Amino acid sequence: MGKKSDAYEAELERLQILLVETQAWTIDEGKKTLIVFEGRDSAGKDGAIKRITEFASPRQTRVVALPKPTEREASQWYFQRYVPHLPSGGETVIFNRSWYNRGGVEPVMGFCTAEQHEQFLRDAPRFEQLLAGGGVTIIKLWLDISKKEQAKRLEERVEDPLKRFKVSSLDAEAQTRWDAYTAARDEMLAETDHKAAPWTVVATDDKKTARLNIIRHILRTIGGPGGRADRPDAEVVFGAAKSRERLFR
Amino acid sequence: MGKKSDAYEAELERLQILLVETQAWTIDEGKKTLIVFEGRDSAGKDGAIKRITEFASPRQTRVVALPKPTEREASQWYFQRYVPHLPSGGETVIFNRSWYNRGGVEPVMGFCTAEQHEQFLRDAPRFEQLLAGGGVTIIKLWLDISKKEQAKRLEERVEDPLKRFKVSSLDAEAQTRWDAYTAARDEMLAETDHKAAPWTVVATDDKKTARLNIIRHILRTIGGPGGRADRPDAEVVFGAAKSRERLFR
Amino acid sequence: MGKKSDAYEAELERLQILLVETQAWTIDEGKKTLIVFEGRDSAGKDGAIKRITEFASPRQTRVVALPKPTEREASQWYFQRYVPHLPSGGETVIFNRSWYNRGGVEPVMGFCTAEQHEQFLRDAPRFEQLLAGGGVTIIKLWLDISKKEQAKRLEERVEDPLKRFKVSSLDAEAQTRWDAYTAARDEMLAETDHKAAPWTVVATDDKKTARLNIIRHILRTIGGPGGRADRPDAEVVFGAAKSRERLFR
Amino acid sequence: MGKKSDAYEAELERLQILLVETQAWTIDEGKKTLIVFEGRDSAGKDGAIKRITEFASPRQTRVVALPKPTEREASQWYFQRYVPHLPSGGETVIFNRSWYNRGGVEPVMGFCTAEQHEQFLRDAPRFEQLLAGGGVTIIKLWLDISKKEQAKRLEERVEDPLKRFKVSSLDAEAQTRWDAYTAARDEMLAETDHKAAPWTVVATDDKKTARLNIIRHILRTIGGPGGRADRPDAEVVFGAAKSRERLFR
Repeated sequence: MGKKSDAYEAELERLQILLVETQAWTIDEGKKTLIVFEGRDSAGKDGAIKRITEFASPRQTRVVALPKPTEREASQWYFQRYVPHLPSGGETVIFNRSWYNRGGVEPVMGFCTAEQHEQFLRDAPRFEQLLAGGGVTIIKLWLDISKKEQAKRLEERVEDPLKRFKVSSLDAEAQTRWDAYTAARDEMLAETDHKAAPWTVVATDDKKTARLNIIRHILRTIGGPGGRADRPDAEVVFGAAKSRERLFR
Repeated sequence: MGKKSDAYEAELERLQILLVETQAWTIDEGKKTLIVFEGRDSAGKDGAIKRITEFASPRQTRVVALPKPTEREASQWYFQRYVPHLPSGGETVIFNRSWYNRGGVEPVMGFCTAEQHEQFLRDAPRFEQLLAGGGVTIIKLWLDISKKEQAKRLEERVEDPLKRFKVSSLDAEAQTRWDAYTAARDEMLAETDHKAAPWTVVATDDKKTARLNIIRHILRTIGGPGGRADRPDAEVVFGAAKSRERLFR
Repeated sequence: MGKKSDAYEAELERLQILLVETQAWTIDEGKKTLIVFEGRDSAGKDGAIKRITEFASPRQTRVVALPKPTEREASQWYFQRYVPHLPSGGETVIFNRSWYNRGGVEPVMGFCTAEQHEQFLRDAPRFEQLLAGGGVTIIKLWLDISKKEQAKRLEERVEDPLKRFKVSSLDAEAQTRWDAYTAARDEMLAETDHKAAPWTVVATDDKKTARLNIIRHILRTIGGPGGRADRPDAEVVFGAAKSRERLFR
Repeated sequence: MGKKSDAYEAELERLQILLVETQAWTIDEGKKTLIVFEGRDSAGKDGAIKRITEFASPRQTRVVALPKPTEREASQWYFQRYVPHLPSGGETVIFNRSWYNRGGVEPVMGFCTAEQHEQFLRDAPRFEQLLAGGGVTIIKLWLDISKKEQAKRLEERVEDPLKRFKVSSLDAEAQTRWDAYTAARDEMLAETDHKAAPWTVVATDDKKTARLNIIRHILRTIGGPGGRADRPDAEVVFGAAKSRERLFR
């Protein structure tokens, strides 16, 4: 391992220790934490979640990645199938993709109507406001990858026998419909960024830096003992609503 | 059986047939129906629900009467434990008491804080608007009994060996705290009556008339083939927000 | 109402009071009770269950009528989908049809293979022995109707607008495949009658007598205060394994 | 990293690729796989599970580590709370501790009666035979650590801030009651080893060798494309029933 990698490992460990301290505190205080990971395919969601949960309390931590809705679920109130997974007191729940499917893959791939898409963009903040009012800390992360880096990662995946279960039939569309995904993302970030549950955009072409930034942002947002960690690098992490234009040029 | 009773049985059967027709239609159309029964102890909720569900489709009908929350549930977002029971497409769900516990028994008996009560009154309409926007028809019924009639029914219960499981340790409070319950009800009806899910108040001192009025109101609200039923008696059923003062003198 | 009917109503009420006493006792003692209702279409299962549950404790009583298995459930261990519904301490659970679908409608209609049928007949008693060893009182009732009476009831159903949701596309098969159902029933009763969970066969052409006999049998089997009820009529209720030949001539 | 470590990494990757191939096959074939991890505290269960699931299909893999039973669950049939987690077709479920709690920690710590313990030892094989008959491949692994190595690991844990959530109030008892745990283990392995679900004992003082042996054993037992992997080292992995005496000297 090179020097840069050693520095990453050391910093990651330091932050993971802070995560452990922070979670011990959220458990004691009975705080409810919800972390939503969104972003294009191969943007680094799984890898970041793995580092966050590596030393987390198994009892009080859940990673939720729902399969596509059954016919019955598709007939229900849109948010219904997500609600049973929300955190109870003391729990940290990480959504690996979430209700924001309806802000991205669904409209882009034609899995929902334009009307459902619009309604979702109106309802999501209202739904989240209710949760926040009920004491849920909501951290919404958009992991942002460049078109070139995504192309590289998707290609590598196909060739790696260990990544067989990461390869999806939708992968090809990620590049083909790049611009449609960009437009959907921009609209989603603009429409669903609100005070009770703001978006934070993280550039992830450099995976390691991204992971460190994500953990720092989580520590800072939850507060508590881990909040004494370094502030995230202002050049890398942006509040979505305010400075999207700077990141997405 | 006397003449009056015969007329009731005949009308009940007529309305139950309309309910069957209506439900066949809501199943075909994939409509979601949520009926919320609220009211003081012994106001006639169980009896009315029994008549409504007597010939309903067992597959597409559910009566939900949740026990008091576990410690874990009590730590969650207030509406969370109700959400899994909401209707899927084609289903009719009847809540025998509901989230409105926090608008009545909880504040009156001191099971929630004043702040939680206030927040509930603010949040309930917002929550219901989301459901309504998701295609759920919400029918909220307040079954209204007089103090004297309640006293009589609670007394009869105690003496009837078949009603053993209806008797509750809270029954005594229903009369003792009558005025506190009245105040809570008035505030609740005023604060949570809204276009997407209005309250309907039904006088239930006369059980049979009440049942017929309730079914008529349900048929009319759902619409469909059963909507061709007679209009409910305007002297007995009121829209809560508009004419509460007339009923509750 | 005639004299005979009055006598039925009086006896039913007496037995229902005993059911209430018995359930209060099973709740206090934390006993787990499982009642399985099986029998051909229109044999009277719903009507009997209705009388048993009419005054039962809503909190501690559940009637379970599972829809046909989803594809996922069909891929699981056969008994898996039934297990979450088994009674906890103090609960009475009534299965309106049960795992015995695989002893009747499934082999007759070709919904399972001959091998699955055989395996089921071997496994059911073993599964039930485990439950019984875990403290579950299992009462298995076969409601027995004659071919002629079934024909009459199925016909009446079709004409009654209140029974619309009782009519099933399989109804026609009940008469057409009468003998296949008889053979399946005989094999099932012979193979799955065992000490820990014996079958009891009840003749149901006379609905009222059947209901009274069923309740008496339940009271007697559970024991407790309700067990002081009259013994069931030995001419009507039989232990399946011992005297099937007498009933099914 | 040293030479030995490099060899481990290389072999681990080779086996993980075989696991991926094997799972792709079990998914295609709709096979149900249940892997039960048992063993004393710090025997290496979590670490082994982590390597097995690292590249597994998230959709078809579940790791189940149930919290201690609620009061309601404790009143149920003992196996009831485990059943909903059993694998559906194509799924691999890993139990990190299981119903075998009642063969170890419960009798040793006095959390169950002697009678419940005995009944469990009788019932577990019967229950597993039913599952196996229902097409579930059951792999039961006992991870075997020495008293000295356990002492070392438990001590290290306490000092490592990243292992805070691994430290349990029962840890101290693991050493104090070492012999009682040994006796319980020996009885459990003897009584619950049977053809449909045999035990395999793995020595885990050397973590890396243990992980490789465990994966090899899983590949071999499931069969399919991964079954072409090297046979496990006969000096390290034993069939419990036959050669327990050799390992546990």
